[in-house]
Amino acid sequence: MIRVALVQHAAHAERARVWERIEHALDEAARNGAQLVLLPELPLGAYFCQSEDQAAFAQAEPVPGPTSERLGALAARHGLVIVGSVFERRAAGLYHNTAIVLETDGRLAGCYRKMHIPDDPGFYEKYYFTPGDLGFVPITTSVGRLGVLVCWDQWYPEAARLMALAGADMLLYPTAIGYDPRDPAEEQARQKAAWELVQRGHAVANGLPVLVANRCGHEPDPTGATAGIAFWGGSFICGPQGEWLARGEAEPTVLMATLDRAHTERVRQTWPFLRDRRIDAYSDLLKRFRD
Amino acid sequence: MIRVALVQHAAHAERARVWERIEHALDEAARNGAQLVLLPELPLGAYFCQSEDQAAFAQAEPVPGPTSERLGALAARHGLVIVGSVFERRAAGLYHNTAIVLETDGRLAGCYRKMHIPDDPGFYEKYYFTPGDLGFVPITTSVGRLGVLVCWDQWYPEAARLMALAGADMLLYPTAIGYDPRDPAEEQARQKAAWELVQRGHAVANGLPVLVANRCGHEPDPTGATAGIAFWGGSFICGPQGEWLARGEAEPTVLMATLDRAHTERVRQTWPFLRDRRIDAYSDLLKRFRD
Repeated sequence: MIRVALVQHAAHAERARVWERIEHALDEAARNGAQLVLLPELPLGAYFCQSEDQAAFAQAEPVPGPTSERLGALAARHGLVIVGSVFERRAAGLYHNTAIVLETDGRLAGCYRKMHIPDDPGFYEKYYFTPGDLGFVPITTSVGRLGVLVCWDQWYPEAARLMALAGADMLLYPTAIGYDPRDPAEEQARQKAAWELVQRGHAVANGLPVLVANRCGHEPDPTGATAGIAFWGGSFICGPQGEWLARGEAEPTVLMATLDRAHTERVRQTWPFLRDRRIDAYSDLLKRFRD
Repeated sequence: MIRVALVQHAAHAERARVWERIEHALDEAARNGAQLVLLPELPLGAYFCQSEDQAAFAQAEPVPGPTSERLGALAARHGLVIVGSVFERRAAGLYHNTAIVLETDGRLAGCYRKMHIPDDPGFYEKYYFTPGDLGFVPITTSVGRLGVLVCWDQWYPEAARLMALAGADMLLYPTAIGYDPRDPAEEQARQKAAWELVQRGHAVANGLPVLVANRCGHEPDPTGATAGIAFWGGSFICGPQGEWLARGEAEPTVLMATLDRAHTERVRQTWPFLRDRRIDAYSDLLKRFRD
């Protein structure tokens, strides 16, 4: 059994205030018995990818670096495994959107560089982030093998499957997704439902628990060209049948759940999907399109 | 725009009565403007895979054969495309679980041999069905390219993705799935929800409508060893964001929906998942396990 938590929070322009919020949330999670805490994507400030602004590169930092060190110290203080998210400066002109995993002793257990990079109005990530080159490899920790992926990866069954095939014990998605406030309410509802469906679908297809930490709150478009993004919160933890274990609304929150590895294994015995994969017939998955 | 229908029905031991039901359902669908009708998996009798019984092979037939001819005549009579399901005898000792597609002129447009074959208590399909060797290839018809898959395939994101990559306009699943009546109600509810989630997840991940035709009603275990199967019905049609378009309960029914290809294309422009697939990093999908 493992007790997991995730933090859903709203951005704040002052980094010191963000750290206060993160420390407060980690305190709360630890007090409630958490062994593992997942933070949202790029939690240290506004979602800067709403525009293409060269000045934003100044926010990037190396890994290991100040954020991994500070989160490592918090992990050690509370005896937690922490999954965080950093705007990584790897070299001049080479940046990544990187998840970092801190061990209970404060050590950097590993990192994952976001593999699938989106680009659509308000989410200009291809400008900032080089696609990851570390592949889909779970990070081994004292609480299990963590299949850490990031945001846009959540739409890709391939990413979830590769983590499962590499022995991940759970899938974890730091994310930053929201509505365009100008979209009609029905379209907003369909988008949020689709986002839940596809990730709960990964839980089912792979017989794995899934943790998703999103940000919440409205952030204006710095260019003023659009209505900004209404980050929808809705962070959740589901079990290996996609069943709800914890589910946030639109406000900042700390969600907790208990994962039962023996239950997960029974689910995967009942529906042993990995047994019957037709690996002899999947080669076209490596094509862009079958035309 | 295309008007689609699916038939959810309960088994009957007398094949003549089953044909009456199918003909009645096709009449109803055609009267309501259907251009395409999907039938459940192996609809012509009881779900014989509850036990391993050599006598059941006598029910198998060639393709083309009597069922494809009769469905072809019905397709031509109503001007429908029909997706049916046959226990195919390909050769002595070589049988398949095969979906067949009949064109509006009665011609056999193509077939799909179930690729992923289950085997668990009450579903002894590996005894009966050789895994398909036609691959994941949509069948071209006058109403579009049909990504026809069968039952256990529904748990495999790989199958859905390969159909999408080959230009499928929708995914169609004839199926036969139900509860073990001895399972507690919560487990039954989780199983049915998981089944919906994973298939609606395929709709989202691929930006495609999904049609699922299941059987309904209880069928006893011919060996008497178990409580049989309570086929849960719950057939559904969802759109490219996984949104419900039609949804059956546990009773026989004909479900209808209108699919809008232009809407589907807009959804795929909004979230262009195929654009960002990391085909350079997916090669391990062709492995059984990454150990």
